[in-house]
Amino acid sequence: MPVGTQATVKALTPEDLREMGAEIILSNTYHLYLRPGHERIQRLGGLHRFMHWDYPLLTDSGGFQVFSLNALVKLSAEGVQFQSHIDGSRHGITPEKAVEIQEALGADIIMCLDDCTPYPASHGRAERSLELTLNWSRRCRDSRRRQDQALFGIVQGGMYPDLRKRSVEALGEMGFEGYAIGGLSVGESKELMFEVVSQTAPLLPSDRPRYLMGVGTPFDIAQAVLQGVDMFDCVLPTRNARNGTLFTRNGRLVIKNARHADEESPLEPGCSCYTCRNFSRAYLRHLYLAEEILAMRLNTIHNLHFYLDFMGEIRQAIAEGRLKEWAKSCYALGNGEEEEGAPPSDPWGSPSRKRMTGKKNRDSTGTVSMK
Amino acid sequence: MPVGTQATVKALTPEDLREMGAEIILSNTYHLYLRPGHERIQRLGGLHRFMHWDYPLLTDSGGFQVFSLNALVKLSAEGVQFQSHIDGSRHGITPEKAVEIQEALGADIIMCLDDCTPYPASHGRAERSLELTLNWSRRCRDSRRRQDQALFGIVQGGMYPDLRKRSVEALGEMGFEGYAIGGLSVGESKELMFEVVSQTAPLLPSDRPRYLMGVGTPFDIAQAVLQGVDMFDCVLPTRNARNGTLFTRNGRLVIKNARHADEESPLEPGCSCYTCRNFSRAYLRHLYLAEEILAMRLNTIHNLHFYLDFMGEIRQAIAEGRLKEWAKSCYALGNGEEEEGAPPSDPWGSPSRKRMTGKKNRDSTGTVSMK
Repeated sequence: MPVGTQATVKALTPEDLREMGAEIILSNTYHLYLRPGHERIQRLGGLHRFMHWDYPLLTDSGGFQVFSLNALVKLSAEGVQFQSHIDGSRHGITPEKAVEIQEALGADIIMCLDDCTPYPASHGRAERSLELTLNWSRRCRDSRRRQDQALFGIVQGGMYPDLRKRSVEALGEMGFEGYAIGGLSVGESKELMFEVVSQTAPLLPSDRPRYLMGVGTPFDIAQAVLQGVDMFDCVLPTRNARNGTLFTRNGRLVIKNARHADEESPLEPGCSCYTCRNFSRAYLRHLYLAEEILAMRLNTIHNLHFYLDFMGEIRQAIAEGRLKEWAKSCYALGNGEEEEGAPPSDPWGSPSRKRMTGKKNRDSTGTVSMK
Repeated sequence: MPVGTQATVKALTPEDLREMGAEIILSNTYHLYLRPGHERIQRLGGLHRFMHWDYPLLTDSGGFQVFSLNALVKLSAEGVQFQSHIDGSRHGITPEKAVEIQEALGADIIMCLDDCTPYPASHGRAERSLELTLNWSRRCRDSRRRQDQALFGIVQGGMYPDLRKRSVEALGEMGFEGYAIGGLSVGESKELMFEVVSQTAPLLPSDRPRYLMGVGTPFDIAQAVLQGVDMFDCVLPTRNARNGTLFTRNGRLVIKNARHADEESPLEPGCSCYTCRNFSRAYLRHLYLAEEILAMRLNTIHNLHFYLDFMGEIRQAIAEGRLKEWAKSCYALGNGEEEEGAPPSDPWGSPSRKRMTGKKNRDSTGTVSMK
């Protein structure tokens, strides 16, 4: 489930992740391509061995971060050209190259290179972007050499139902092992995002995983699962943790707040994570204010544990045929301990939610949750 | 054995420390007094409980950091007055207050407030500083209320044998549970430091622990043990780890060096630490260059494991009556893998050694090793 751009989930070891039940990690192709280099990782035995993670891995195509981390990007039918954000060196990524890099890294799930349509975009622009993505998707499929990896296609089409439908159909004809819904969480309203998800997800093959990229709060995830989505990735649990914002059943908890200074209780009473079993809010607040590295680690452990628990509940509710009831009870949770003015609809949303939306959503460290 | 200013060993959990066999942690009174406050920690059940560490703890008196972290310090017979480096607030620490704070924190070993004589200092100045320390030591002893903590006196006297001798005798008459040799590693040459240690250590009661504060490299420690020292604290293993400098049997290893880019072997072949059991130098170099938090954690684990192993060897050599032979073989180790020009006398010394000497030596995170 969780992840890091740099072949690690920030602040955690693989053992930390396994202890909390994580099953899959996302790594960012863009970062690994630039440093330490996919060929080096291949020589060293592949990404699993390099990062000491013997369980499933997913790599993105690199395209998203080429655009979000670089100013000088040139897009053409052939692919994308850009300058490294590290040393300014020039690079080009084509669909064939994206597959080549991901085959060298050796993740279990790899992604087609896509053109993430910006928001807002006119119908014409979204259509041209979609055609490019479909062309690239075919080239990715045709250039793959390894058959032991699952290759996912990415649905684009902006906020236009007809384009999303065309995208789903065209990708389905090409045939992929799974399908991602891309081009969302790029600045549009949450209502619009879920409108697109609800129109798109049901069109996807029911016998293949459906992956909503870059989403979201537990509330968002519950909503998307109700629409038929199976997989997610998001930086929220890990990045929020490093910023001292914790997820609890009652909403967000901001550890630096003075109310926690003398608080002996854990972040969430009853939580079975390592952090809650052993440390008080008072201590976690102290570590955070003292800018101790351990603060990031302990907070990350709690937030990922929260997400993994949450996904476990969703799976169980599905297995027992009571997903809708479960989702209702989930929505009825508190309004966020720290944010009394937060909308009752998402106890884990704003103000952090607002900061997390838009292009930066998957820049640094993402989380993949599998339903 | 290891430690942090902020009630943590930077980047590690108590479980990490126990797994590598650490038995005692040093915490800095100055930092905890200012934030989160000794009274708060006392209300929360004491330092052991606060930081989730059920094993021995040592707190320093706070005096050293009052001087090293603050510009506006006023010294008087009564004590020291200073402004917080965090918020500029004014504070005063007297010998009585130093004991009161340390009793509230509740460590197993606490230290007398001393005046760390600067280097160089004239005989007259060193003598006045010593008299102040002796006066404060008596006041610390007389003001203690808890008898379940061991109170250590600190020997001062600059680089003058007669003053060191007077210091030892006066403290011995007062009667403490242990004795520290202070006022060293403050800018003097290593030769001079060991001259003072060799003159001072044998004078101390042989039935009480002898503690050399702020020292040192494994080489320094071996030398001091030969002079009869039992305990040490130092930031070297943890701070070097965070800076990417690792300790190995062959000397220092600088992980960022290009030679490690494709290196599949661990930091030290045969090392049984978590880091060496699971990660290649290539991966550790990648994490370090990518500025990943995990780099600091994995490096810290290795360096502390190295120190703890080293101390274990010393204990065994003493038990088997072959300390001198062991020390000889230790000195005969390589000249430092990365530092071909380093003096053969200390494979773990310069250039980092030079940076670590002087006043800053115990500023941030220290390590206590018990023989």
